[in-house]
Amino acid sequence: MSGAMGDTVKPLDGIRVLDLTHVLAGPYATLFLAQAGAEVIKIERPGTGELARRHLVRAADGRTVDHTMAYLNRGKKGVTLDLRSEEGREIFIELVKISDVVMENFTATTMRRLGLDYATLAEINPRIVYTSVSGFGHDDIYPGPYTERPAFNLIAQAMSGIMDITGERDGPPVPTGVAIGDLVAGIFAVSGTLMALRHRDLTGRGQHVDVAMYDSLASFSQRALLRYHLTDELPTRGNDARENPLGAFRVADGYVVMTTMGDAMWDRLCTLIDRTDLRDDPDLNPDTARGRRYDQVLRPILEEWARERTRAEVVELFRAADLPAAPVQNVHDLLHCPQLRARRMVYEVDDPRRGRLAFTGNPIKLSRVPEEEPAPAPELGEDTDEVLAKLLDLDGARLIGLRARNVV
Amino acid sequence: MSGAMGDTVKPLDGIRVLDLTHVLAGPYATLFLAQAGAEVIKIERPGTGELARRHLVRAADGRTVDHTMAYLNRGKKGVTLDLRSEEGREIFIELVKISDVVMENFTATTMRRLGLDYATLAEINPRIVYTSVSGFGHDDIYPGPYTERPAFNLIAQAMSGIMDITGERDGPPVPTGVAIGDLVAGIFAVSGTLMALRHRDLTGRGQHVDVAMYDSLASFSQRALLRYHLTDELPTRGNDARENPLGAFRVADGYVVMTTMGDAMWDRLCTLIDRTDLRDDPDLNPDTARGRRYDQVLRPILEEWARERTRAEVVELFRAADLPAAPVQNVHDLLHCPQLRARRMVYEVDDPRRGRLAFTGNPIKLSRVPEEEPAPAPELGEDTDEVLAKLLDLDGARLIGLRARNVV
Repeated sequence: MSGAMGDTVKPLDGIRVLDLTHVLAGPYATLFLAQAGAEVIKIERPGTGELARRHLVRAADGRTVDHTMAYLNRGKKGVTLDLRSEEGREIFIELVKISDVVMENFTATTMRRLGLDYATLAEINPRIVYTSVSGFGHDDIYPGPYTERPAFNLIAQAMSGIMDITGERDGPPVPTGVAIGDLVAGIFAVSGTLMALRHRDLTGRGQHVDVAMYDSLASFSQRALLRYHLTDELPTRGNDARENPLGAFRVADGYVVMTTMGDAMWDRLCTLIDRTDLRDDPDLNPDTARGRRYDQVLRPILEEWARERTRAEVVELFRAADLPAAPVQNVHDLLHCPQLRARRMVYEVDDPRRGRLAFTGNPIKLSRVPEEEPAPAPELGEDTDEVLAKLLDLDGARLIGLRARNVV
Repeated sequence: MSGAMGDTVKPLDGIRVLDLTHVLAGPYATLFLAQAGAEVIKIERPGTGELARRHLVRAADGRTVDHTMAYLNRGKKGVTLDLRSEEGREIFIELVKISDVVMENFTATTMRRLGLDYATLAEINPRIVYTSVSGFGHDDIYPGPYTERPAFNLIAQAMSGIMDITGERDGPPVPTGVAIGDLVAGIFAVSGTLMALRHRDLTGRGQHVDVAMYDSLASFSQRALLRYHLTDELPTRGNDARENPLGAFRVADGYVVMTTMGDAMWDRLCTLIDRTDLRDDPDLNPDTARGRRYDQVLRPILEEWARERTRAEVVELFRAADLPAAPVQNVHDLLHCPQLRARRMVYEVDDPRRGRLAFTGNPIKLSRVPEEEPAPAPELGEDTDEVLAKLLDLDGARLIGLRARNVV
């Protein structure tokens, strides 16, 4: 077997996470904690569960699959608990006493309204690490004027400065096609939680980890921000400000991306496409001119050259000329990519309830932690009885009562 | 003072990082380790230093600033050491014996050629955590056929499936305007390093943490991959497959993004823009039809309505109608955003050598770890003598000799 060799110990063995998150940013974060060995107890509202349970997709073979639930909640236990009821709240607090991490991604005031904010839970268990993911952050560490605003991926992208420089030169700003607003905040929440656990090892105390989607994406605009601060020049969409020619061009079966950096690469490109006449063309020198004129001049030339060539042929010709290029891949390509298959970054599993599913893997490859396929995402409340009986010693009669009162 | 209260202990106190990284993905990762309290020793080639030292920008006031260096290498110590020389390699190995983490982002075979790959260093210090960031991953854990290929942000974006669904419907795929290929891999490297440190606490042994740019971005295509696997339908650029209307529209002073979800929001939008005639228009019902026709039908209607209104006015009108909207902000907006200022996500500092600079802050807000402004990015080799004298007890004569032989 390829893959990591080593211990049966996992990095987060012994760490119990109470996971109150829903849909995307939060569940993406706790997925990494589960894969690293934490016991992640996903707590949902009885009856309906979290929003992702209603994201259904109709498969070509007739199945209806809760796909968002399926990919984000692997390896987690499913427990129902109504935190709005006094009895549910009391049970949650008993769980907090014996847990290490609480993760939530409600709006910034929801947990306070429920009487379950960090200040309250820290009184009950000073060792608790309490990680919040929200649009604009909570108000206990660095309060800002936008704290109460709800946020969506699109809003975080728009406000972050990223969307402003994504798109074609004369077109509107376009969002990145995946939910980077949620996903990036989710990874920062993982790092923050791990830092707080380490801090707890040193000090004996937990803390509040407060990650905002807007903050997370704004940190990706660092380079553009500093350049603007220094030069007073705003970056633009398209390639006006690029230092090198860079972008996609159409070939027979899709698109290829290319770039050249500097005159040596430019020379090789001119030779490759049999246009040595361009080499010293004043309109395409120096490099920055090629960058500015990529869309208007260079792309049409490349498209003419590549009209009858496939992505694979073009990339191979570039590679043979020692020039960077790559196919623009779609998810069909990803599903069949030998690299992603070999890296266990794409694979298929048979979910006993949902049928065959394709997943992306864990990009954090650890040489001493063999990757195991996590259990399928739980049904709503699937593990309620087992978890509450085992961790809180609740007996069968109590559980029946809780269920009758819709607390679980 | 707002901000965290608490301990003077930081999460990574006592952790020493030998930082061999350059330019973007690696230095971005070690920046978070430095901010969390690690002693990060940035090791560069004598004479030239890393590539970022040659990324210079000419400021409006005449300064020339190594801006990439300045924002990515705050809080790190600067040491020169020629790892290609036998003497330099020996000194590095002495440092490995007393360090906790080595981070590098060379191509996948460089460290092996230098005799400094994980297997070699683990023999010398079994507790070392060795984090690699590369385009396609190393070959010791999950070897793949693309291991040897160099990677750039653009290539990772193109291959990941993200670029294929970013752009206008009839236009080419466009890259996201920030280097998500590097930045996302950098954050995963932080999480992986912290996991490996925790694993070491449990087992006494370090390990290799292997993060690839391609893997990292491919994991962001999970939702699209699973949907395709289930439905056999490829996602498209633009909004053909969107479930809700969503996107940017031009207003008097820029762009605003909006979305509606469901009929109640749609009703409110029709009332807001005084087009109740659209409410039951068969071409704009159900919600998915509004999604598909956003660019062709809805955007022009919104642009007509917003032609003489500013971003702030439009967003306020949407907010008053309980509809999600936000301005598409540029870096000028970020620099003056009251939320980012309050969250310490944007601030200005006076660098004693570089002058006034604007930085983005740390999106990982920890309630018990007060944020301190890190020291400015070091000059090339600024801390060489101090670090080598202190950590390895090298005396002045030895240091003079090393310098004469261009080892440091």
